[in-house]
Amino acid sequence: MRPSGRAANELRAISIEPGFNRHAEGSCLIRFGDTHVLCTATVEERVPPFLRNKGTGWVTAEYGMLPRSTHSRSPREAARGKQSGRTQEIQRLIGRSLRAVVDLERLGERQVTVDCDVLQADGGTRTASITGGYVAASIALQGLVDQGLLPGLPIREAVAAVSCGIVGGEAVLDLDYVEDSGAEADANFVLSASGGIVEVQVTAEDHPILPSQLQAMQALAGEGVARLIDIQREAIAAAGTRRP
Amino acid sequence: MRPSGRAANELRAISIEPGFNRHAEGSCLIRFGDTHVLCTATVEERVPPFLRNKGTGWVTAEYGMLPRSTHSRSPREAARGKQSGRTQEIQRLIGRSLRAVVDLERLGERQVTVDCDVLQADGGTRTASITGGYVAASIALQGLVDQGLLPGLPIREAVAAVSCGIVGGEAVLDLDYVEDSGAEADANFVLSASGGIVEVQVTAEDHPILPSQLQAMQALAGEGVARLIDIQREAIAAAGTRRP
Amino acid sequence: MRPSGRAANELRAISIEPGFNRHAEGSCLIRFGDTHVLCTATVEERVPPFLRNKGTGWVTAEYGMLPRSTHSRSPREAARGKQSGRTQEIQRLIGRSLRAVVDLERLGERQVTVDCDVLQADGGTRTASITGGYVAASIALQGLVDQGLLPGLPIREAVAAVSCGIVGGEAVLDLDYVEDSGAEADANFVLSASGGIVEVQVTAEDHPILPSQLQAMQALAGEGVARLIDIQREAIAAAGTRRP
Amino acid sequence: MRPSGRAANELRAISIEPGFNRHAEGSCLIRFGDTHVLCTATVEERVPPFLRNKGTGWVTAEYGMLPRSTHSRSPREAARGKQSGRTQEIQRLIGRSLRAVVDLERLGERQVTVDCDVLQADGGTRTASITGGYVAASIALQGLVDQGLLPGLPIREAVAAVSCGIVGGEAVLDLDYVEDSGAEADANFVLSASGGIVEVQVTAEDHPILPSQLQAMQALAGEGVARLIDIQREAIAAAGTRRP
Amino acid sequence: MRPSGRAANELRAISIEPGFNRHAEGSCLIRFGDTHVLCTATVEERVPPFLRNKGTGWVTAEYGMLPRSTHSRSPREAARGKQSGRTQEIQRLIGRSLRAVVDLERLGERQVTVDCDVLQADGGTRTASITGGYVAASIALQGLVDQGLLPGLPIREAVAAVSCGIVGGEAVLDLDYVEDSGAEADANFVLSASGGIVEVQVTAEDHPILPSQLQAMQALAGEGVARLIDIQREAIAAAGTRRP
Amino acid sequence: MRPSGRAANELRAISIEPGFNRHAEGSCLIRFGDTHVLCTATVEERVPPFLRNKGTGWVTAEYGMLPRSTHSRSPREAARGKQSGRTQEIQRLIGRSLRAVVDLERLGERQVTVDCDVLQADGGTRTASITGGYVAASIALQGLVDQGLLPGLPIREAVAAVSCGIVGGEAVLDLDYVEDSGAEADANFVLSASGGIVEVQVTAEDHPILPSQLQAMQALAGEGVARLIDIQREAIAAAGTRRP
Repeated sequence: MRPSGRAANELRAISIEPGFNRHAEGSCLIRFGDTHVLCTATVEERVPPFLRNKGTGWVTAEYGMLPRSTHSRSPREAARGKQSGRTQEIQRLIGRSLRAVVDLERLGERQVTVDCDVLQADGGTRTASITGGYVAASIALQGLVDQGLLPGLPIREAVAAVSCGIVGGEAVLDLDYVEDSGAEADANFVLSASGGIVEVQVTAEDHPILPSQLQAMQALAGEGVARLIDIQREAIAAAGTRRP
Repeated sequence: MRPSGRAANELRAISIEPGFNRHAEGSCLIRFGDTHVLCTATVEERVPPFLRNKGTGWVTAEYGMLPRSTHSRSPREAARGKQSGRTQEIQRLIGRSLRAVVDLERLGERQVTVDCDVLQADGGTRTASITGGYVAASIALQGLVDQGLLPGLPIREAVAAVSCGIVGGEAVLDLDYVEDSGAEADANFVLSASGGIVEVQVTAEDHPILPSQLQAMQALAGEGVARLIDIQREAIAAAGTRRP
Repeated sequence: MRPSGRAANELRAISIEPGFNRHAEGSCLIRFGDTHVLCTATVEERVPPFLRNKGTGWVTAEYGMLPRSTHSRSPREAARGKQSGRTQEIQRLIGRSLRAVVDLERLGERQVTVDCDVLQADGGTRTASITGGYVAASIALQGLVDQGLLPGLPIREAVAAVSCGIVGGEAVLDLDYVEDSGAEADANFVLSASGGIVEVQVTAEDHPILPSQLQAMQALAGEGVARLIDIQREAIAAAGTRRP
Repeated sequence: MRPSGRAANELRAISIEPGFNRHAEGSCLIRFGDTHVLCTATVEERVPPFLRNKGTGWVTAEYGMLPRSTHSRSPREAARGKQSGRTQEIQRLIGRSLRAVVDLERLGERQVTVDCDVLQADGGTRTASITGGYVAASIALQGLVDQGLLPGLPIREAVAAVSCGIVGGEAVLDLDYVEDSGAEADANFVLSASGGIVEVQVTAEDHPILPSQLQAMQALAGEGVARLIDIQREAIAAAGTRRP
Repeated sequence: MRPSGRAANELRAISIEPGFNRHAEGSCLIRFGDTHVLCTATVEERVPPFLRNKGTGWVTAEYGMLPRSTHSRSPREAARGKQSGRTQEIQRLIGRSLRAVVDLERLGERQVTVDCDVLQADGGTRTASITGGYVAASIALQGLVDQGLLPGLPIREAVAAVSCGIVGGEAVLDLDYVEDSGAEADANFVLSASGGIVEVQVTAEDHPILPSQLQAMQALAGEGVARLIDIQREAIAAAGTRRP
Repeated sequence: MRPSGRAANELRAISIEPGFNRHAEGSCLIRFGDTHVLCTATVEERVPPFLRNKGTGWVTAEYGMLPRSTHSRSPREAARGKQSGRTQEIQRLIGRSLRAVVDLERLGERQVTVDCDVLQADGGTRTASITGGYVAASIALQGLVDQGLLPGLPIREAVAAVSCGIVGGEAVLDLDYVEDSGAEADANFVLSASGGIVEVQVTAEDHPILPSQLQAMQALAGEGVARLIDIQREAIAAAGTRRP
């Protein structure tokens, strides 16, 4: 029995509220249970120096946690004067995940910056960020199409992410903080709508795990991401109908 | 006529949603029109080094803007590696304003840290932060009383803040971003429930202003803060009834 | 009775020694009693990026305290690797105060940087910096006129600043460090020669103050600034006669 | 055919030279072809603050690349004033990998710091660092046993790491820089002597990959790590015989 | 003929004004021609961590240049966020020079921090800093004796510094900025009252110099330092008579 | 008798292994006994901003110590976020020393960056860095000649460096760490093949030293550098024969 009473292959309550921020070209507030992340996508008509005049665009991401998003308060990174290794690792992961499904050539010389800011954390903030970040970016890119700036959506397929873990020897899906703290291993799967693998990160905590355990987690992740991609699709559609 | 159609002495739509964050000892999401600030108050059983063993507590504040809270995206301070002068000026102001109404001796050797994070900005983020920060801090301190850790609420009176400006020669209350951009002067008033002055900051933009204009703004601010203090009271009461 | 024996409306001994630094386009050493600030104005034929090719100039300021300008030694900001929030707040204030009286369009595409470095501190360093910074900037701008680079002085009127406080319930002018440490409120007034308000900053220390107390301070500040503007005028005139 | 002429399951020439540094408690120079990493292990009789008085030890790692270890010179991180996200990500990975096989309780209140400095890079620096870092740490820990400070080696089993990639649709082992630049996916496997999974990181470059491709890489990695663990064993044994 | 009209072995006009800062335990404004340095010595009843409980004291120094001490304005180090290599090199030199003549054991567990801040620069700021820093430190240490905190002055002998250079093939003493810019070599000699060598730093600019040229500079430096030590002695004596 | 059993004028075992790094245009591993420094020279077809379009090149250097190059581990500068004053002082010295013998005009608009990274330290790392840095730079510059990019080697003469010290009142050559720790004075001589003086740095530790002691060190340094220049010549010649 999981602490939350969920089945091993059961996601937390997931919701995606598009248009949470009125300034951003695309945005949503995504909730994986008590994990709440505000995702905004900003479109700028410029690219980083290494891409200038190459006819291709860029997608990048930044990640942050509000100081009191955590159970006890964490120091503010802006005040400490640097982003932690964990923050950088997560924002690099979000960026790579989104670039794997966006067609950068069709995007043209533009940059999409996805900001994922955790308002409240209860485990799985990086997978919520990727899943919500994809929604924000999609809305922003659809906006470019709607304004006639792009002939079609430069996205090959959807991408979403979910965590799995080994708890008491068994694989479980979408860990919350309590479960994560006691897990023997912890894995993040970033998968595409067609079932392709975008990123996998597996970390055994105190002891190595078995290859069969990795496979069990991979199977759960496939199920979970399929459901997340359905929820993403509804949120993106809802955003479209709200547009004037 | 103001761009928003408001009367000179009219506040924007104000709302305060207490308990927006489940981890913080006190929290609210405050909205001054399209300016939305998430305020959390954290209570810790420690004080900064300069107060150790003096039998007195401390209230401090930190402020931040999410990168896309603004009309165009602003660089993330954590990524730039330092907080701007503006950020530091605002968080120092929030902290002083709250300390002016909290009785630090009755608080005991504890620190209350109020984090004000701007989710969406449309002018007046510092005054919304002070007004919402007071609500978050009050809820947190009431929690200490409810748990029997304090005999009574260590607050002398409420505090709230509002901006005023001189636009077209006339004083107006609670400027939004468009109005603020064109104002001849800009002032922030932090006032207490009894009408006392906690902080005043007046800045003339291109030319000095007249003493009579300062007085007109001061009168508007008095009215505005009185209404804000009513709204704060309701939010704090609502937070109380939700507590289990 | 004030600790210094001064009357409530009495300034400390004020002196302004123009030309203290031989490299700067304008400079002075200003003394408000035991507060000594070296002010230099540097003219450069360039403007910050946001003003390029707009036909307008810029005035900015930086502020610093020598480590042993204070009663006990303060850490050197260059060694700590950042300027404190207080430093940034003060230098932003000095810059805004000077920009309120300089006509940036008539200045042309030039930048004036005013550096205010506190050699010895005894309260009121920001007001001394503004008052002396105006003198340094005036001398530098007069130099541009004298060299035929500008048709006339791009200054609308003089600006000076003074602090006031509430001590024992009464308003007093130009606090020194001892008086400032015990004051109930502390205010800085930046006023122009014509009596206009450029900046006002009022901070109540432990309790809010009364509106009447603010008015009493405002009246004292008006008197004080009038005297400071006379002293500035003499210093600027003296600088002129020394020029070859 | 691979650019290097190697078979798909063939490692580069691997060598481990123990005792490369005379000051460190354990050290080696490890070479994976033209990738050369100097690994040192430092033992200190202290633990980080969060572990004090808990009777348990700690293993941590730091990673760096010399500026000209790369094909063209990279800026020195010490001169830039911060470690890149990539550096932090790699050193966190090395530390977790080693902690997964060291018994921290049997280590006692000591810290082992493994420094992995890349003298020359040609792909796979992180896997060479883990593989060499384990050798350096083992030698250092054996030293504690030899000195009678520990009753037995606090290591549960060996750990080593190797990269795999998908090149032209096929899985290949231990990519060099040229191969890595053109790979469709890139994966790092950290595996234990018993075949357990310590860490897996898979990154698809431009498009998602197939689950079967991940399995093919996993199989190659298992073979490769088995060979690396043999080479580690010989190096550790050689270090032992050199000890006086 | 030197640009200043001085003879090869002639110092610039030297003056030392003791007691320039009323807060510091010792201070002076030293002038080597147009090079003006404010030196303060702070005595604190603590030592750096590496000396705690060793019964010995410490002397250290910090150095800075005001932004407009130079011919054109230099960026403020506190704003840039770090001290330059030149600044650190100079302050390390000042500290070593003073420690070579202070008896740290007789000083007891105290730290003397000498701050040398250049108000105006015209070459030779480091030698002026050492020469003035010695005066400030002497006055501060004499103060400890006068207060009965030390039985005698913990100084073995005086120390002073002067620069020399090779200009047009000839050795000259105490270069100003113009001369220094065109010199073929530049040397700084820190010598003690008894003629001992404390520090020598010789730098050839474009080509190596001859050993005989080094000897010629060394001879000039000996003469120059002897005169500086006389001027130091007078300033320290003058400080003494002013003490109440 | 010296701890190492060497005669007063005897260098440690010196070896220079050219071509240690396959990416750099020039490189060597230099050993002064147990002090081992990896020197690489990078040639880039660009110059720093202050030299652009002046038809002249630049030579600069950077220096670093691996954390465990020292007897006990030193914190990594990249992790601390800044280079120490000592590091900056040394890299400035290496750069100046090499510029004194390279003809920057004949080099053309190119930059040579010499990185000196200490793999193992036992005293004298800065002198080993200069001596090895010259070899790396020579090999790199000879490569430009061999490729027809330069008509001739833009080097006027060789440069090398060695330390001397006063131990027990006597001058000795090339101190190792143990000797250096107990020396009364410590000096570094950078001399050219023709016997010219490039840089001299003398530091008395606790007491001033005598002019005669400086002369004794200078004589030893002359002998030592002559031998080092022979060893440099052989290494550079060996590098040449290995080139395909």
